[in-house]
Amino acid sequence: MDLTTALKWRYATKRMTGEKVSDAHLAQILEAIQLSPSSRGLQPYKIFVIEADEWKKKIQPVADGQPQIVECSHLLVFCVEVSTSKEKLESYIRHLAVERNLTLEKLDGLKSVLFRDQLPMNEEQYYHWAAKQAYIALAYGQLMANTLGIDAAALEGFSPKELDELLDLKNQGLRSAVLLAIGYRDENADYMLKLKKVRKPKSELFKSIL
Amino acid sequence: MDLTTALKWRYATKRMTGEKVSDAHLAQILEAIQLSPSSRGLQPYKIFVIEADEWKKKIQPVADGQPQIVECSHLLVFCVEVSTSKEKLESYIRHLAVERNLTLEKLDGLKSVLFRDQLPMNEEQYYHWAAKQAYIALAYGQLMANTLGIDAAALEGFSPKELDELLDLKNQGLRSAVLLAIGYRDENADYMLKLKKVRKPKSELFKSIL
Repeated sequence: MDLTTALKWRYATKRMTGEKVSDAHLAQILEAIQLSPSSRGLQPYKIFVIEADEWKKKIQPVADGQPQIVECSHLLVFCVEVSTSKEKLESYIRHLAVERNLTLEKLDGLKSVLFRDQLPMNEEQYYHWAAKQAYIALAYGQLMANTLGIDAAALEGFSPKELDELLDLKNQGLRSAVLLAIGYRDENADYMLKLKKVRKPKSELFKSIL
Repeated sequence: MDLTTALKWRYATKRMTGEKVSDAHLAQILEAIQLSPSSRGLQPYKIFVIEADEWKKKIQPVADGQPQIVECSHLLVFCVEVSTSKEKLESYIRHLAVERNLTLEKLDGLKSVLFRDQLPMNEEQYYHWAAKQAYIALAYGQLMANTLGIDAAALEGFSPKELDELLDLKNQGLRSAVLLAIGYRDENADYMLKLKKVRKPKSELFKSIL
């Protein structure tokens, strides 16, 4: 369906049927996430794509028992890198040089900017900066799913500390940021489906400066 | 164009022609922002839609002189609310009750959850939570623009302190979070257009748990 239709079709899905999303559709959703923009193209995140029922059942208790966690087809856990370093940024620059067939000298300006902006951040600042990029990626994945007629519920209600431990994220240099449960709405069980979509009126949400 | 095509057509537009986006297209972009999901539906943001050249010129110097600021058709400034309060949350609950034709008692559970999650946040925590919601809204606006063949460049390179002062945001209970410059790419002037889109390979970006 087109994007405007999808925006109206979408709602905060609370109950899902467990039906599986096809490999082809999953690939399209992951591609939208991969192609989503991030600050300076750094993509400071990694996404766990969880299909195993066993793992969904382990995660549900640390996510307020939300039913979508076990009723979805795939649970996406958006994790962000804990920190950056000169080495990481230099490796990114080298990757860019190879991919774009540029000399490293041509990328000296970008390198200076990256060093200037990224290296002074403390752990909390880096986390929030990276998580914001992950939220853009989440939105891209969500809209792609919706245009394919697939529900994608963004979930914040979980204990980051417990989820990080469960997935052993610290040892991988990662922290959990947000979840996206992908699957199909259970039209009979989901009370949310019948509720009117409520939004701030445009007059309150926007301020025009003409 | 469809979403998959738009994802490949999109790039980090650095130069724009100044051509105006039509009122109808602007309305579709703002509607996508309005319909974007946010945590508990709270939409803790307000978006300034700046068309006035005079204001774009004032903003450009506090945004690293980025050319899109003055070459775009409309500059969207995503601002987030500085804080919340019992009164604000209660007003939200009342609005929800009216719109969904529910009694206030029916929303007591939601009210408790909102009080529990929102009220303990300090200013920084609230800012980052709210900004993440704004980034989702930004992504929705961006993708809607792109499917309409309109460029939409997300810009973080600005001084929040100076922009907040310029737009007198503090007195409106707001802080700036991120910018979105909407307009049309200048194909002749923009060096970015010719550069290959570089992304982390799927093997690095995703981790499957089957």
